[in-house]
Amino acid sequence: MVVELINTGSELMLGRVLNTHQQWLCRQLANLGYVVSRQVAIADTAASIQVAVNESLARAELIITTGGLGPTSDDLTRDLVAEMLGKKLHEDPAVLAHIKGFFDIRNRPMPESTRVQALIPEGALVLPNPHGTAPGLAMKIEPNPFRSDGKPAWLLMLPGPPRELRPMFTDSVVPLLRRELPLEMGFVSATLRVTGLGESLVEERIKEPLVDLVAAGLEVGYCARPGQVDVRVAAYGAEAETQIRAAQKIVQERLHEHIFASEDEELSSVVVALLRERRQTLALAESCTGGCIANQLTNVPGASAVFLAGLVTYSNEAKQLLLGVPGATIEEHGAVSEPVARLMAEGAKSRLNSDYALSVTGIAGPDGGTPDKPVGTVFIALAGPFGTMAHHYFNPFDRVTFKDVTGQQALDMLRRKIRH
Amino acid sequence: MVVELINTGSELMLGRVLNTHQQWLCRQLANLGYVVSRQVAIADTAASIQVAVNESLARAELIITTGGLGPTSDDLTRDLVAEMLGKKLHEDPAVLAHIKGFFDIRNRPMPESTRVQALIPEGALVLPNPHGTAPGLAMKIEPNPFRSDGKPAWLLMLPGPPRELRPMFTDSVVPLLRRELPLEMGFVSATLRVTGLGESLVEERIKEPLVDLVAAGLEVGYCARPGQVDVRVAAYGAEAETQIRAAQKIVQERLHEHIFASEDEELSSVVVALLRERRQTLALAESCTGGCIANQLTNVPGASAVFLAGLVTYSNEAKQLLLGVPGATIEEHGAVSEPVARLMAEGAKSRLNSDYALSVTGIAGPDGGTPDKPVGTVFIALAGPFGTMAHHYFNPFDRVTFKDVTGQQALDMLRRKIRH
Repeated sequence: MVVELINTGSELMLGRVLNTHQQWLCRQLANLGYVVSRQVAIADTAASIQVAVNESLARAELIITTGGLGPTSDDLTRDLVAEMLGKKLHEDPAVLAHIKGFFDIRNRPMPESTRVQALIPEGALVLPNPHGTAPGLAMKIEPNPFRSDGKPAWLLMLPGPPRELRPMFTDSVVPLLRRELPLEMGFVSATLRVTGLGESLVEERIKEPLVDLVAAGLEVGYCARPGQVDVRVAAYGAEAETQIRAAQKIVQERLHEHIFASEDEELSSVVVALLRERRQTLALAESCTGGCIANQLTNVPGASAVFLAGLVTYSNEAKQLLLGVPGATIEEHGAVSEPVARLMAEGAKSRLNSDYALSVTGIAGPDGGTPDKPVGTVFIALAGPFGTMAHHYFNPFDRVTFKDVTGQQALDMLRRKIRH
Repeated sequence: MVVELINTGSELMLGRVLNTHQQWLCRQLANLGYVVSRQVAIADTAASIQVAVNESLARAELIITTGGLGPTSDDLTRDLVAEMLGKKLHEDPAVLAHIKGFFDIRNRPMPESTRVQALIPEGALVLPNPHGTAPGLAMKIEPNPFRSDGKPAWLLMLPGPPRELRPMFTDSVVPLLRRELPLEMGFVSATLRVTGLGESLVEERIKEPLVDLVAAGLEVGYCARPGQVDVRVAAYGAEAETQIRAAQKIVQERLHEHIFASEDEELSSVVVALLRERRQTLALAESCTGGCIANQLTNVPGASAVFLAGLVTYSNEAKQLLLGVPGATIEEHGAVSEPVARLMAEGAKSRLNSDYALSVTGIAGPDGGTPDKPVGTVFIALAGPFGTMAHHYFNPFDRVTFKDVTGQQALDMLRRKIRH
């Protein structure tokens, strides 16, 4: 089934807002087995909207538009679509009553301009909008005059505000898809998240072993982010379940210790969950990552149960004062060195009386590199019940990427140590 | 000039990643006076890419693609475009040397698969990629066989990773646009960044005073982000410069102390610069923001000159141990209280001997709220040469937004105190 999205809004074209509809709708649809093949964003002008709807109707069996259903002069989608399809608009009494009620319970008079939102093209289904005034509209176009084969298409028009669109999708669009556009065959997908290997190395390890499954129709996709690669496998048909299980087994075998999550979990959530299960605690001593790891961990709800404190010891004085690293060690080996990393982790662990402590010291750049220790040099240490371990990494990236990648390496060092 | 963007990536169609290129590129282009009229995202399949490039070449004078230049089997853009335009690919020795060097300095062997990134379509300009292996490509298509009038088009192919794409846009694409596709009339735009006021309040304060300039053609746009609103003004034509100066004066007068930057500077950079100028130092004591402020500050190159240390004292024990907050005060007022915020800031300042110390304590949620102190409650304190001040805020947002907004409020408290 060909599925296309059309997002309208001049603010999108000026880069003033991020188009979050694209990701949200694509993800919801993909999880149901409807993969979007094209997403278009255009300005709120009649010409742009007509061209985009026209092109999509010529190609797709399911078209979803967002925006353009409101009461202002740049809300054109409803009128334009009715005109393109030769459908009259009529005022729907139930929708009008909903709009009036919306203002009534807020003790506000209904602005006359909102009345246009009760206009419904003939033959359209109304998708209720409990969180706003503009209802969604669903139209079955049969026969479809925009394709030579006349094959029918569903055109779904959803409102722009995310808090209106999202519940409408879940409550009205999903049942409509299941009823009117059921998948012809089974669909299964799975994602495995990998750290510690770059995208090309990940592909190198699993491409060959997956060759037979790919020949049989398995889809494999890679998505690289700082310190992380997602491997997604998807399959259609009666064998989908079996194919995905076989693919997961192969990926697991080839990348085993590098896989930290299935589906959408973050490494920080995995680490928080592992510590919670074991009722163990963590302290951090961050130099070059500057609070990036603490920030990641504290994005996880419930982190307070395991995360005691983080010491962002940016200056040498702070390393001495807060972590008890002797000035002589810093003098002898430099602040960016394995001995200092070890002493930072041990200092944080003993001062905060935690089960584990992670420390990071390195050169984020752009300045501060030397021939011996170029920008990107980093030492990560982990102190725990087992003693202290340390690794040397080289992450020659821009400052923000350096912090993200280093943070992933530190959290992964802890994850592996806890699990094995 | 008609400008279109094409973002390729199957991960976009599956909703696995957010398409940040759309907003970033649209914004950069709009600031230069090139407004994008259509943005399309498609999967990494040959058919989708060909159809999209074909359609854009038939309409636009400037087409920018992102993604599809990497080394894996789903990176098809370079080959497909060369084929569509009947151009041969040749291996570029300089690009190959760059790729080899990229792996050499990382002490890693060059995977054979990356060699394809040195293939360049004949006649294409190479846009250097100092942050990755795949260069960007720029092709002037003249005459353009995809339009009946043969009017030439520029097709720019940029890599997918943002850390590669963004500097390439700034360093190579902007000069190319200025040289090869100059605007026909004057264009000036300016952005002023505001904090401490919501979007509707910002608009309320400046809409009326700008009415005459808007009638004369000035464009005004707002973009709201956590703790921040950008006000953008743009004008075309001979009077553009004068109009923008007049608009900036009005916005400055109406929002003066709320404006923290012009153009794209972050609040954290402004604070680091102010401290550097004054040779003053800062320490942080963060509870509910969990390292978010330290992370923001240390994203600024040169932060180490002013930022001594951050203490992420998530637990009550850490507040006592690291900041010397008496257990009795926590007992009496609760950890989320003005007295504790004040003692945290004073403890950080005296222990680290800094000129200023900022502290934050609050309830990020989703749990932990009470009727007295609901989720979103936060106290921010600033200790400095002047003594200690504290404010109470209420930020009832999701956890990550809460941290971002609170961090902006804390940094802004410091900014205002330093400046005034």
